[in-house]
Amino acid sequence: MIGTKMAEPIHGIPVQKIGAAALADLLGRWPAAEGPLYRLLAARISRLTDAGELAAGLRLPAERDLAAALSVSRNTVAAAYQLLRDEGMAESRQGAATRIVPHRTTPAAVHRANGFFAGLLEASAVDVDLSLAAVDCAPQVAAAVADPAIVLDPAERAAVTRTSGYFPHGLPVLRAAIAGHLTDRLRLPAGAVQIIVTTGGQQAIDLLIRSEVLPGQPVVVEDPTYPGALDALQRAGARVIGVPAAEGLDPDRLEHVVRTHRPALVYLIPTYHNPTGRLMPAGHRERIARLAAASPDTLFVDDMTLAELPLGDGPAWAFRALPLAALGPDQPNLVSIGSLSKLYWGGLRTGWIRASEGIIARLAAAKAAADQGSAAFQQAIIAALLRGPHDEIVKWRGEWLRSRYTALAGALRASLPDWTWPEPDGGLTLWARLPGEADSGAFAQAALRHGVAVVPGRLLSVYSAGVDSAGTGTTSEYVRLAYAQPPDLLRAAVRTLAAIPARSR
Amino acid sequence: MIGTKMAEPIHGIPVQKIGAAALADLLGRWPAAEGPLYRLLAARISRLTDAGELAAGLRLPAERDLAAALSVSRNTVAAAYQLLRDEGMAESRQGAATRIVPHRTTPAAVHRANGFFAGLLEASAVDVDLSLAAVDCAPQVAAAVADPAIVLDPAERAAVTRTSGYFPHGLPVLRAAIAGHLTDRLRLPAGAVQIIVTTGGQQAIDLLIRSEVLPGQPVVVEDPTYPGALDALQRAGARVIGVPAAEGLDPDRLEHVVRTHRPALVYLIPTYHNPTGRLMPAGHRERIARLAAASPDTLFVDDMTLAELPLGDGPAWAFRALPLAALGPDQPNLVSIGSLSKLYWGGLRTGWIRASEGIIARLAAAKAAADQGSAAFQQAIIAALLRGPHDEIVKWRGEWLRSRYTALAGALRASLPDWTWPEPDGGLTLWARLPGEADSGAFAQAALRHGVAVVPGRLLSVYSAGVDSAGTGTTSEYVRLAYAQPPDLLRAAVRTLAAIPARSR
Repeated sequence: MIGTKMAEPIHGIPVQKIGAAALADLLGRWPAAEGPLYRLLAARISRLTDAGELAAGLRLPAERDLAAALSVSRNTVAAAYQLLRDEGMAESRQGAATRIVPHRTTPAAVHRANGFFAGLLEASAVDVDLSLAAVDCAPQVAAAVADPAIVLDPAERAAVTRTSGYFPHGLPVLRAAIAGHLTDRLRLPAGAVQIIVTTGGQQAIDLLIRSEVLPGQPVVVEDPTYPGALDALQRAGARVIGVPAAEGLDPDRLEHVVRTHRPALVYLIPTYHNPTGRLMPAGHRERIARLAAASPDTLFVDDMTLAELPLGDGPAWAFRALPLAALGPDQPNLVSIGSLSKLYWGGLRTGWIRASEGIIARLAAAKAAADQGSAAFQQAIIAALLRGPHDEIVKWRGEWLRSRYTALAGALRASLPDWTWPEPDGGLTLWARLPGEADSGAFAQAALRHGVAVVPGRLLSVYSAGVDSAGTGTTSEYVRLAYAQPPDLLRAAVRTLAAIPARSR
Repeated sequence: MIGTKMAEPIHGIPVQKIGAAALADLLGRWPAAEGPLYRLLAARISRLTDAGELAAGLRLPAERDLAAALSVSRNTVAAAYQLLRDEGMAESRQGAATRIVPHRTTPAAVHRANGFFAGLLEASAVDVDLSLAAVDCAPQVAAAVADPAIVLDPAERAAVTRTSGYFPHGLPVLRAAIAGHLTDRLRLPAGAVQIIVTTGGQQAIDLLIRSEVLPGQPVVVEDPTYPGALDALQRAGARVIGVPAAEGLDPDRLEHVVRTHRPALVYLIPTYHNPTGRLMPAGHRERIARLAAASPDTLFVDDMTLAELPLGDGPAWAFRALPLAALGPDQPNLVSIGSLSKLYWGGLRTGWIRASEGIIARLAAAKAAADQGSAAFQQAIIAALLRGPHDEIVKWRGEWLRSRYTALAGALRASLPDWTWPEPDGGLTLWARLPGEADSGAFAQAALRHGVAVVPGRLLSVYSAGVDSAGTGTTSEYVRLAYAQPPDLLRAAVRTLAAIPARSR
């Protein structure tokens, strides 16, 4: 249960309460449907309760606080709470706070949900979605998955279906193709035995956590960072420590935190950081590689998922900085992960980990317990794409990316001139700061009711997304805007955002 | 770390030792390669150490004990230990026991490996593998994955690649196809909203454990049971309780255990139990459904992975017994899981969970954190196979299965007449009992050196596979024999097994 803290026990059962901002995160896209707001709000709270994300006996926020967090009137919240009481889902005793009726929740559950994914999982009807950094399928990829004969000859196709199909390490031909890709294009020397194939970058992160981090162990991340990493860390019971990175990571500060806490793992996105899009300078990378050499008990994970999405127009492989593991190719605590989801298509769900053979052996055992390996046949298709039209896809995606970033940044400068953001070097997202003392959570709620989904900054932060044990949540002035939609839609979305009353902005 | 127990601490660090039988399990298929036995043994111990499966300072078994567990001479073990000492991997002080040198192991690791999967993960060169219950790819499936146009029209293919590709619940068309399949063929009423698509049956089990079982909570399984379930439970830190099932599950005994321990989850394989192949009678199913109705805090999981592999020659859907959840279709603690891996092909890695909408919501959140959904395109192919040639595939696989079972059972009766096994009703495996006081672990090691891989019974048992906290391991007289190889190979394998000297048998 995130965003909750213990209050005084009643009848021996500790009572938990949830803060208004934390509940707003869990509510996610509740207004993105038809019907009066109070009914939508009550329905969403019911659903979270049935799913066990709101615990038995949980005390809901005061009406006034939730109204402010959601940018709605207090009457809307009051009517929603009344409806919940009418339906037997909630109760208030003697005029006290409203709480979830215990028997309505499932028993098993100490469920800790991240509002980011909880929101994405909800079917919703927004006009423009700036929250999901998902790309459309590259045409070369769409053609190959629909007709594998384009990239595989009959013998190659038959070679896959003649096997048992179980490859916890990944299909050998794909392990080799990824190793070659890293060595030849990304300047990271790798052999096939150092590669495990994963179901996307998300599984790469999750397997590393499951295999290498014990509950309660400290893990260091940039703050803000990729919310999928926070979600996996939270579920694993890691003690997550954030190092500020809104304006770039300070290596001195990272070194201090690593030396103080001796974390099991440090998770970094040096190349086109999510959400800021910044490229970590070469000098900082060298500092971190030296820190890793001096910290053999800590794994340093370099998430290269966005590494082939530069906004500059040079060749994609002309990195201005090396992958961290390229600075110590034989150093066993430098681990790299990546994915083809942002370059080819998310529907492939294909990622990878490059690590020492010993770590790969542990990860393969963890992968066998998790799913016994990813689907086999598509791995042969992806190997062929890596060997074949890869550079052409990189070029196509680069043009796709620049046209979208230009449209979004231009529209923001024209219509919302008081918004600021660090100029991204690559990636798929902007990290925009709202002017004044704005609460981006309330702004995101208001935007949603105008048909535009954005991610409030707190969902990407260790200290406000509820990962820390205090977990009451703080507000954030930032929103993450993904530029993965067509340019016209991005411009329309900015016009909508600019029309939101100043109070919510 | 499995199969270890604490001994007296040295220099304040607790020393662990591993029993001979437990180490033999972890060693898995060590002799299945070229070279002298002592070198192969030393190499495999080194590898386990590098992978963190043998912990820093771990005390290895006495030479005599390990030699007996591996069915090798004491000289072989002595030479292997000497080689490990020569290489700096192990040490013996003052003539005491041999132990792993601390600095050779990785720090993160309290790794608990299951010898079953550890063995399967090793590349090995056996002549006949009776250990893996993996089927070859059905021809209709091989054709469809290699050329999706056979089952999908151009609009259906384009409909998938036009999406973002992220479907934590599964591709909608496959969720609907699985719901229809369960309702129409397997007599289990289901709607698409009650289905989540998983990466094989293994992920179905793992997600349920991750979502619904907290570390330390009791979970009840049949003993023996599917080792992949034991592996996932072990990694999750569940307290696993086995109910004897070598001769079929006694519902009275199950009820007693459930009422005593109030487990979070009960995992059962009522239809063609793995490993025995037995079908649970209808009366027992009704008893268990009533027990579930009286135990709302416990999830009862019915693993239907093998349900379409009957050995009888009636139509596959003519079950002699209903799925457990069909006895209470709206009862939220009856959960069903399954997979197409044993009917279509393991390389599809496609399974499912049928549960209440509330549980599906939690599982989808867990799946988003684990991998954000399985690969999208193949899901459309599988939906088309379920709607199209499914019954034809069932018929083809039934003939495939019967010819293999007949070959294996006939050869065993002819060549090893003192082996016994419960007559299987379906599935892919025999649970054979060796005569006398045989230790099937030592027998499996001897078989491996003759080129035949079988699974020693202890790896399928809660109490001997090292899942229990005592974990010293007991021996088992059973071996699991999969009949997934061609009939000629099965007959050749039995001739090999029959030629193994009686001492090892």
